[in-house]
Amino acid sequence: MAEVNRYIDGEMTRFHDELFEFLRIPSVSARSEHSGDMEKTAAWVADQIRGAGLEASIIETPGHPVVLGEWRGAGPEAATILVYGHYDVQPAEPLELWESPAFEPTVREGSLFARGASDNKGQIFLHIKALEARLKTAGTLPVNVVVVAEGEEEIGSPNLVPFVKEYRDRLACDAVVISDSSMFAQGIPSLLFSLRGLAYFEIHVQGPGGDLHSGSYGGAVVNPGNTLAHIVNSLKNSDGSVAIPGFYDDVMEWDEKTRDAIRALPFDLAGFTDEVGAPGLNGETGFSLLERLWIRPTCDVNGMLSGYTGEGAKTVLPAHAMAKVSFRLVPNQDPVRVGELLRAHVAEIAPPEVEVTVEELHGGRPWKAELEGRFFEAARRALEAAFGRPPVLTGEGGSIPIVVDFQEILEAPVLLMGFAPPGANMHAPNEWITLENFEKGIKAVAEFYGQLED
Amino acid sequence: MAEVNRYIDGEMTRFHDELFEFLRIPSVSARSEHSGDMEKTAAWVADQIRGAGLEASIIETPGHPVVLGEWRGAGPEAATILVYGHYDVQPAEPLELWESPAFEPTVREGSLFARGASDNKGQIFLHIKALEARLKTAGTLPVNVVVVAEGEEEIGSPNLVPFVKEYRDRLACDAVVISDSSMFAQGIPSLLFSLRGLAYFEIHVQGPGGDLHSGSYGGAVVNPGNTLAHIVNSLKNSDGSVAIPGFYDDVMEWDEKTRDAIRALPFDLAGFTDEVGAPGLNGETGFSLLERLWIRPTCDVNGMLSGYTGEGAKTVLPAHAMAKVSFRLVPNQDPVRVGELLRAHVAEIAPPEVEVTVEELHGGRPWKAELEGRFFEAARRALEAAFGRPPVLTGEGGSIPIVVDFQEILEAPVLLMGFAPPGANMHAPNEWITLENFEKGIKAVAEFYGQLED
Repeated sequence: MAEVNRYIDGEMTRFHDELFEFLRIPSVSARSEHSGDMEKTAAWVADQIRGAGLEASIIETPGHPVVLGEWRGAGPEAATILVYGHYDVQPAEPLELWESPAFEPTVREGSLFARGASDNKGQIFLHIKALEARLKTAGTLPVNVVVVAEGEEEIGSPNLVPFVKEYRDRLACDAVVISDSSMFAQGIPSLLFSLRGLAYFEIHVQGPGGDLHSGSYGGAVVNPGNTLAHIVNSLKNSDGSVAIPGFYDDVMEWDEKTRDAIRALPFDLAGFTDEVGAPGLNGETGFSLLERLWIRPTCDVNGMLSGYTGEGAKTVLPAHAMAKVSFRLVPNQDPVRVGELLRAHVAEIAPPEVEVTVEELHGGRPWKAELEGRFFEAARRALEAAFGRPPVLTGEGGSIPIVVDFQEILEAPVLLMGFAPPGANMHAPNEWITLENFEKGIKAVAEFYGQLED
Repeated sequence: MAEVNRYIDGEMTRFHDELFEFLRIPSVSARSEHSGDMEKTAAWVADQIRGAGLEASIIETPGHPVVLGEWRGAGPEAATILVYGHYDVQPAEPLELWESPAFEPTVREGSLFARGASDNKGQIFLHIKALEARLKTAGTLPVNVVVVAEGEEEIGSPNLVPFVKEYRDRLACDAVVISDSSMFAQGIPSLLFSLRGLAYFEIHVQGPGGDLHSGSYGGAVVNPGNTLAHIVNSLKNSDGSVAIPGFYDDVMEWDEKTRDAIRALPFDLAGFTDEVGAPGLNGETGFSLLERLWIRPTCDVNGMLSGYTGEGAKTVLPAHAMAKVSFRLVPNQDPVRVGELLRAHVAEIAPPEVEVTVEELHGGRPWKAELEGRFFEAARRALEAAFGRPPVLTGEGGSIPIVVDFQEILEAPVLLMGFAPPGANMHAPNEWITLENFEKGIKAVAEFYGQLED
């Protein structure tokens, strides 16, 4: 590995220059005025992949293209690793909150600030540089490699699952590696052991045909706002658990070893509390804060609207009330099943004097890593080699639906090793990555391939 | 009375013309661009009062002026009647929903359509015409009369109580007569026995310092939206009663005679159900629909807002949630006391991890009529004479805070006899009054004075 690391150290100035070039292209997938930038970025990524020593194709989709990199030099008997990332970025607005321009990469005190620095240009680019370092030094890799860089992750990847299904044979692999998450703490490399799923609903309560005067009708007409509050309140128990009958039937109880490991993590509770800025924190009784975020399901109001919400005392009995309510799911819950249980529960408690509808807006299944095997062990050792300490296993409260899709369509385990620093402002102004994480990330990924040599 | 009624019949064409003139002036108190119209209307009303044979003054206030009419010809030993009404109207918007222009009075099938036809130009005008008819025929009245026509009723009468207090001696009277309400049904004259009061609050729940990602924080952070639903739900029991401890302590139980009379009213349930347009109707267990509206307190959500309420599935854990919640009160509840009870209840159930504030936006006390005495009997007989059947006693679910103020400041009972047809669209497009009610209203008021002759 010494030679590879020497190469990486020797080329680091160029790697920085190239990353800056990548970050300067405003590849905002959500904005049609950037469609030219999207094409330009895809071409740039393909060139980089070719420069690293792989073949590259740009594959059109109904939206922005997918860049596909391939190196098949290990031969048909060898294993194949699929690396997934995305070259599109979130919009940079509000621009006035950036300390340096969003698309002009700027280094301050060892950190690089730019839209996409962590999410995901910096992280997909470090994979390309690690492949380059291996192929320019050893001249070969112990495994075949497929790189998939999509351009629509920030708009919900509408064309990725069809792409993976259509190119299923060409994408066939033994493991999927994704670096699109954060480390648990600066200096502590991390591997994800789980992601929560999501079941997101919109509940509508319709009462009268139109808004009524609350004096002339109040007391004799069932109020959709009160009914909505009743329904939303019925979703949770006072101990913080979800109150829908059957909701916990499929919830996996994690083993004591995992729970002990979570409890042993050096969690910065004071920092988290400060960041949230609420008078206090609380959640499901019997679980620690990180357990509540990672291994327990929950229910949150995301939005609620009824009647008059402007200034003053309008005496209206609203015709309608609406709530957006979502559930974070854990293995082995299924968003479709949760939708069925929610509908049955609401039908049970909703009064007949209003019409209640429950619409599913979004669903994503939870995910659980395989914490063993050749690829997992290689990743663990590679992270330890690059960062000087073994990785911790962490959960993630959010959802990355494509992880489950890759796993199921390609029938391969997924490894999630993120190099973003905690608090990287991934969807906010002043997004950043440390230059240390960028460099150690390249070395860790290069070492990952080294660990796969027999 | 025959002579007075002949006079009214003979002058009816002119009365119509004058009412049309009155209705053509767009005296919208809420809109500053109509301040010239407000002055013009006040002057027009003063002229009309003078034309009827009373003295009239226009008294400036910090807002729109009060028109004060006075006839003291009955002498200091005689009783005095104060007639209250208002010359301002609600805005006419949305204009496109009017079948004929809001400020161009139009008669269709015996009904007069215009903003203010019922609320309150038509009704205050019929009092002026009744006084004219008495003074132009008999040349005298058995009582002194004071007319108060304000120009700010539709914006909450901000200057009326100060005016009544300042002019208390000049407004001293033995009874207050107000025609600003509806008849129970077309052809059935009505006297009000009660008005509900109002206690209107805005509840705010503040959690995190800013909106959070519901995946990264959900489960460990108390959600203000869920908390708000919990608080709002806690305000009512499943039997439709209010669940705040102590809320019913001051609620008067009405006598069986009143309840029997309510039950005996020819209530058009099918028409009410149609009008509401909900899948069903319900309210407090143990009370009929009219009792729920008139003699029982209630609690209604008037508005509710939290988080993201646009299209799609935004995974936000909102920092804040808000509800507007109001209570309709019955004798002898007090809005100030209800506010204290609500605050104590919310403090009891709100979790310490959020900050909850309860702000009082508006309060009005409930009112109960004196259903006996010289003036009540005169009104009852006058309505019977004009409409050919005795009046029914009805409650009103809404609130007219000034009624209680008049009663307390002037220490005189208030008589509420409304001539608006039910469903008069008082605050909606296509406001109307029947020409029959206008004419019979004039005759009933003229007869009221007749009944007061010894």
